[in-house]
Amino acid sequence: MTRKIAIVGVGKIARDQHVPSIAASDDWTLAATVSRSGTVDNIEAFTDIHQMLAARPDIPVVSLCMPPAPRFASAEACLLAGRHVMLEKPPGMTISEVQILAALAADRGLTLFATWHSRMAPGVDAAKAWLADKAILSVRITWHEDVRRWHPNQDWVFEPGGMGVFDPGINALSILTEILPFAVRAMSARLEVPSNRQAPIAARVVFSHDVVLDLDWQQTGAQVWNIEIETDAGKALLSRGGACFEVDGVEVANGEEREYPRLYDRMSRLLSADKSEVDLRPMIHVADAMTLGERVGVEAFHF
Amino acid sequence: MTRKIAIVGVGKIARDQHVPSIAASDDWTLAATVSRSGTVDNIEAFTDIHQMLAARPDIPVVSLCMPPAPRFASAEACLLAGRHVMLEKPPGMTISEVQILAALAADRGLTLFATWHSRMAPGVDAAKAWLADKAILSVRITWHEDVRRWHPNQDWVFEPGGMGVFDPGINALSILTEILPFAVRAMSARLEVPSNRQAPIAARVVFSHDVVLDLDWQQTGAQVWNIEIETDAGKALLSRGGACFEVDGVEVANGEEREYPRLYDRMSRLLSADKSEVDLRPMIHVADAMTLGERVGVEAFHF
Repeated sequence: MTRKIAIVGVGKIARDQHVPSIAASDDWTLAATVSRSGTVDNIEAFTDIHQMLAARPDIPVVSLCMPPAPRFASAEACLLAGRHVMLEKPPGMTISEVQILAALAADRGLTLFATWHSRMAPGVDAAKAWLADKAILSVRITWHEDVRRWHPNQDWVFEPGGMGVFDPGINALSILTEILPFAVRAMSARLEVPSNRQAPIAARVVFSHDVVLDLDWQQTGAQVWNIEIETDAGKALLSRGGACFEVDGVEVANGEEREYPRLYDRMSRLLSADKSEVDLRPMIHVADAMTLGERVGVEAFHF
Repeated sequence: MTRKIAIVGVGKIARDQHVPSIAASDDWTLAATVSRSGTVDNIEAFTDIHQMLAARPDIPVVSLCMPPAPRFASAEACLLAGRHVMLEKPPGMTISEVQILAALAADRGLTLFATWHSRMAPGVDAAKAWLADKAILSVRITWHEDVRRWHPNQDWVFEPGGMGVFDPGINALSILTEILPFAVRAMSARLEVPSNRQAPIAARVVFSHDVVLDLDWQQTGAQVWNIEIETDAGKALLSRGGACFEVDGVEVANGEEREYPRLYDRMSRLLSADKSEVDLRPMIHVADAMTLGERVGVEAFHF
């Protein structure tokens, strides 16, 4: 028996990942979409979340794929209407709003799943297992990608609340917090903010335990999403955004990329177990970096 | 029987509040101080926390009164040495570091008390009790004070991690989160940052539920620390930083100011009950405002 699900926000990430993952799953049936602009062939399309919730009481689960700014209102409406909710990353613009949603879900006995898709990359579990009993000497995270390629003309990423380069950077932090056997804290941060924008286009955050996060959103050519970990038992490398894990150059894990299918599998299991999963640590690290970061003006950025 | 306590950081707040509160209490005895600059007459003085911890195993409780930047290392050292810890507000530079301290205290069975002195103001409990069964229509917080008067030449308040005007603003947020019967979330923020500084000198944060926080650190003359609350049962006003609570102009509470004595009373009770108290909500609101705030440059500030 499949579960009916609705998607809210039919943009790039929904088309590229959510819709195909649901279509390929035996657990799920896409029953409706809500979007002001996009639709999915042969699926009932709404333009307003409240109309969908009223018209389709048979859909128990809603997956929210729109940008973080408008997401809270939709998530709250879904929970108030008794629906379980999946949130794209980051789960909100602020920590407080996600805490409010988590409390509301708990209060109503509903499942809230704040997803971190990068944690589902095939090398992450292997890295976590391998690191569990090692002494970790240092961690270098290099997350260099091209904002023009991944967020073409999406001005919202540079607006207040858009997080800037922490939008991809939070993926690295979601992996870091998953694989490290101890908690770290941001100790200083340097944020490079284009003169015509509000959010940083590059950042360097120095954490405790010799962990350094280096983010750059103007990387043309090969994209780099690497986490290098120096340990007492060798040099580990989690590369390609978590896809590949190797130790001293020897591959340990390099499975098939199926981050979003695994998120929907996990949502199924959370629903069956009547549980929520809301881990705010990646967001807290971003908020900490934004709070204590030194801002340095850099040249204007235009898409 | 009194408890021995050591104070770390003998600056303005320690002299004005902590030392007299301890001296006036039947529960406490000031047994040592740690400071590179200040001492207290007739009390053993150390300049290094590690030396104090090694030399005075008989002191079970340490109160940390230094600025937030160096506080984590001292707090961690105290907990690792098996001492209970009181933290001045804000409890840290980052949310993560306070979470790490809370986990460490829990792990070792020690008491950690992240204090919010403004919550101890005499009108706060009355405001909380009165608001509990009212419909709250709007909240206007006006926190206008003179940084030159309260933080003379303390450049650290404007440095990264110093929080700027949120250093007093977090006092208002500590009261707000105590008296409101529901949770709010920052929805937008405007941060005015002097051209020669990193942290805001003025800020306006718009929260959900028609709650607005208005902070200004250049208020000469009368200082304003007011929270006005419009309800279905009248207009409430918590004024003078929480000292006085009135409804429709009629005074409800206006007791003697004893914020710091009450903090030390509370620490006594926490120790007797073997409990910790670490409420991060005020810090989370500041981090949220700093994360989603729009920054506006304003003229340079010099003390």
